[in-house]
Formats: sequence, C-alpha cells, structure tokens
Amino acid sequence: MRLAIVGVGAVGRSVAELASEHGHEVVGLADSTGAALGDPVDVEAALARKSETGAVGEEPYEALLGAEYDALVEATPTTLGDAEPGFSNAVAALDRDRHVVLANKGPVAERYDELRDAVRASEGELRFEATVGGAIPAVRTVEDVGPNRVDRVRGVLNGTANFVLSRMAAEGLSYDHVLSEAQDLGVAEADPTFDVDGTDAALKGVIVANVLREARDRAALTLDDAEVEGIESLPASALSLAGEDGRTVRLIAEATPDGVRVGPRLVPENGTLAVTGTQNIVQIETDHAGRLNISGHGAGGPETASAVLSDVGRLPPR
Amino acid sequence: MRLAIVGVGAVGRSVAELASEHGHEVVGLADSTGAALGDPVDVEAALARKSETGAVGEEPYEALLGAEYDALVEATPTTLGDAEPGFSNAVAALDRDRHVVLANKGPVAERYDELRDAVRASEGELRFEATVGGAIPAVRTVEDVGPNRVDRVRGVLNGTANFVLSRMAAEGLSYDHVLSEAQDLGVAEADPTFDVDGTDAALKGVIVANVLREARDRAALTLDDAEVEGIESLPASALSLAGEDGRTVRLIAEATPDGVRVGPRLVPENGTLAVTGTQNIVQIETDHAGRLNISGHGAGGPETASAVLSDVGRLPPR
Repeated sequence: MRLAIVGVGAVGRSVAELASEHGHEVVGLADSTGAALGDPVDVEAALARKSETGAVGEEPYEALLGAEYDALVEATPTTLGDAEPGFSNAVAALDRDRHVVLANKGPVAERYDELRDAVRASEGELRFEATVGGAIPAVRTVEDVGPNRVDRVRGVLNGTANFVLSRMAAEGLSYDHVLSEAQDLGVAEADPTFDVDGTDAALKGVIVANVLREARDRAALTLDDAEVEGIESLPASALSLAGEDGRTVRLIAEATPDGVRVGPRLVPENGTLAVTGTQNIVQIETDHAGRLNISGHGAGGPETASAVLSDVGRLPPR
Repeated sequence: MRLAIVGVGAVGRSVAELASEHGHEVVGLADSTGAALGDPVDVEAALARKSETGAVGEEPYEALLGAEYDALVEATPTTLGDAEPGFSNAVAALDRDRHVVLANKGPVAERYDELRDAVRASEGELRFEATVGGAIPAVRTVEDVGPNRVDRVRGVLNGTANFVLSRMAAEGLSYDHVLSEAQDLGVAEADPTFDVDGTDAALKGVIVANVLREARDRAALTLDDAEVEGIESLPASALSLAGEDGRTVRLIAEATPDGVRVGPRLVPENGTLAVTGTQNIVQIETDHAGRLNISGHGAGGPETASAVLSDVGRLPPR
C-alpha cells in the first residue's frame, strides 16, 4: 500500500523506516517544516536531511495531502479542543476516498462524531489502534469481540505515570524525586504535565469509550466528559500505607459506554493491573468471553509504529 | 453469515446459541447422531431434542456438509494422527468454496500442509483462533503483528494443568489429591490424560509454530515433532522448593519457527507467566513491538465460541 505519513516524530519516523518491511511504500513524508514526495520516497535520505537541515523535504507541507497515496498515516502531535491539524488532515484524506490510520489521539478523542461523518461519506476507512496503548491491540480486540459485547475496559494507559508510581512504591521515594529521575532517564518528557495529570490516559479512555458508544448508537464523548485526577499530589506515604496492606497504587483509566474515569486507585500488589515500569495493561470485560488482559509496551516509536502498520495491514485494497 | 456447525459439545452448542447475537444464522447443526437443517434451524428446539432423544435431528450427518452455508464451524472432538473427521469435514467445505472456522485442533496440528493445499485451491478462507487459548486472541495477534515478525510464542495453554499446579503450590497438596479435587469440581475431565501429559498444550504449540512457519515458507509440524513432558510425576516437594526461592512451576508451551517444547518450568511466583487457576496466558515476542502478554479464559463453551464468532466476523462475505 502507498503511504503518506504526516508527522515525523518518533512514531512517524518509525513508520517510515519499517513500512517496506511490511510490504508498503512511502510516497510522502511531511511535517510542518516541509514535505518529501516520491515514488517511493528515499526515507533514509529524507530523515538524514531532516537531521541536517531541519526540513524533511522542500515541497510545502500541503503538497503531501494531494499526493497519490492509498492511506494517510496521521502522526502529528495530539492537540486538545479542535484537534488540529490532525483532524483536517484526516478529513482531507477521507474526502479523497483514501484510508486514514491515526497515531494522533486528538481527532478520535475530541471530534469523533464529525470524523465519523467524514468516514460515512468516504470510501476510505479509518483505523486508530496506535492511539491506545502503543503496541497493545486494545481497539482491535474490542472490535473482534464486538464492541457491543464489551461492558468495560480498564487499565494502565500511561507509561510515565506508571513508572513514577512503580518507583515510588519500590524505593519509598517522593513524587518529585522520581519524576526528575524519570526525566533524566528519558522516560518522562521535559513537560510531563499530560502524563501525570491524567490527561493522556483520559484521552485514551475517551477513544475506547467512543468505540463502545458507536456500537450502541450513542454520541461520542470528548475529554471534557471525562472525570480525571492525576498523581501529582500523591504522597509517598500513600504508597507505603498501601504496601503494608499488600496493595499498591496505579493510575487507572476506566471506560464504559457511559463515561470515562481516570485516577489513582488501590490495586493488589501482585495483581494483574499492577504492571511495573513503563508497561501498559488493558483489561477488557466481555459478556461471553470473560476478562481479557493484554499488556505490553504502551509507547515508543517502533512499538507504536507496529500498531500503525498492523492497522495498515487490515485495510482493504483500494 | 449462514453457519453450518458440526460438533454439538460445549463449543458447538455455544456457537449455535450465540450466533444470532452476532448477526449470523445457523442453517445446519450436526453431530454423529444426526443433523438438523433449516433456514434457519430452530437452535433451541434442536438442542432440546438432543437432550431428550440423544439426536440433534433426523437428517443424516452427511446432509449437513451439502447444505447451503457460508462457513462451516468444525467443532468435533480433536483427534490425533489422521485428525478425522475434522480434516475431511474442513476439506469438504473448502472444496465447495466455503469458509471454514475450526475449534478442532487436529487438522492444523496434524495435517496443516494438506489443509493449506485445500485452502489454496479454494475461494473459502480458513480460520482457527479458537484452537489456541480459548477466548485469548493469540493467532490473530500474531497475524496482525505479522507472523514473520514474531520470534517466539510462549505460555500457559492448558487450564487443567494450571489449576493443578496452582493448587499444589498454594496448598502443599499432592498431584493425585489435587487432580481428583479438580475432577470433582468439573475443572478436569474424567480422563485428563491429554491435559496433564502435555499433549493438549503441545497441539496448541504446534498450531502456533505452524503459523510462524507458514510465513517463512517452511513445512508444517505435527505433534510428533514436539518435545513434550507432562506434570504427572511432579512431586509436591518441587513446588515447595520453588516457593522458597520466590518461584513456582507452570506447564509452559513454547513455539518458535524451529519447533515446539512443552514441559514444567520454573517461573517467578508473581511474574506474568504465573497465572492462577484455569487462566491461560500467551506471551508473544515481536521484533519491533516488544513482548505482548495476553491472558484470559483458555477454555469453556461460551469463551471458545466467542473466538469462533470473532473469526466468523472477520471472514469476507461470500
């Protein structure tokens, strides 16, 4: 399949690098600095050019959207509210009857009803496995079980927050201490606000809730509908108290057809939900198949690119 | 989709009962006692008839294979060696360009090369998610990641053996004691030989290995190629010794493109592989997406039927 990739961060870059291994070719690669077009694009040269000059190519960014691709991979940074430019990029592709694979959470978490309208009017399909839990096949498993046969999805959906909580519990250290350690290790970003205040986990929860709601013909939710509490003010004493009782604390996101809640919760110390480090886990409660637990790498360029390319692999040919 | 179901044990029965919820209709239901045909079959009446008279319907078994169905659900008991009647039933459907969804492990574990020949000559497709780990989407996750990007799949694939080992470790009881307890509870069958001697886990391992090998153009394996050791002669002392060291014993099946090994292994007591009770877990080692862990109900009528119906849901329309 011919891919146009917009966004050249860790995920977009990995998709570009791994596409040919999966039998696809990259015909466009762009970010706000410019676009490289080709049939196919020389990915290595384009990425080297970006490292050297700051720009991936000399064409204007908009040229990518008009290129002859089969699927647009939208991997620009997630933005809240209007979810731009991700939303308009996705709609532009759907309007041309092209497929869209999102790594960007914004369009599904903030404007899913509008996006669905564009999908209904298009011969292109929309997929967004990479927006929830990186390499973990959360969305596809819900789809395969049947979203109207899933009552609840719960899990650890932010690796940075989980790393911080795991370390606080294991070492008895304070939140501030562990967070700056995580930043030194490159596990936490320079501005980890959305990871530790629950926003990132909530966006993923809203995406899952929207899949559950769509199957029930209910209107999509947005981040504003989620009840969100972060881990920033969690004292080390809360973790040591939990530990004395054989429990620990995890930032748990829970999505049902009725809504989304995110917050620190007590979970059994050696239980399924207490994944450690940057791991993510998703628990899917089904009506006939019991509870399914899926854990793995919830972030990272190659891991998330792997989810994008699995999505591409399931698209029908154009 | 119009389903013909052959085999009316726990799985076939559940598929028949749940099919309409998934938007499918049952046009045939058969086992060795006879067949019920209809457009659609009155499933409730057919199952009641089987309870009362022993026969699901008055038509001969063979009539089912000639019926007008889109997909054959093969849920007769797994047999070793020639894998009959499952193999011939599957091939008969493929020869008529119908889809086949297997719950029966035999055809893929014992005669996969021949079965693939029949698939290549057919317009029907073959799926067999339900043969490995019940409700756990093991085969589909390997397929979605890409079987040639999966190096190794390992896990607990037999719930009976896992129940026995969990109880032996938790209670310090002997193998014989726990096994008869499991039989009383209905967790173990009257003849649990294939569960405790590793055969059942090995069949599942061979199925996964065959998926990995097919992607690498290598000939299929059979049960004879697997190295298998069971848990029948494991002394309670082995579990208590392991426990003193923070470890426990699980019956682990491991499949790579090179082969299959099944046997009792030491694993960390609170580690991911140490699922308890009748739970199953599958660990998928990928090249770019790291390790994915999926756990859930590995057996049971509705759980396995859920996997069958997910497979049906992914078949192309005829």
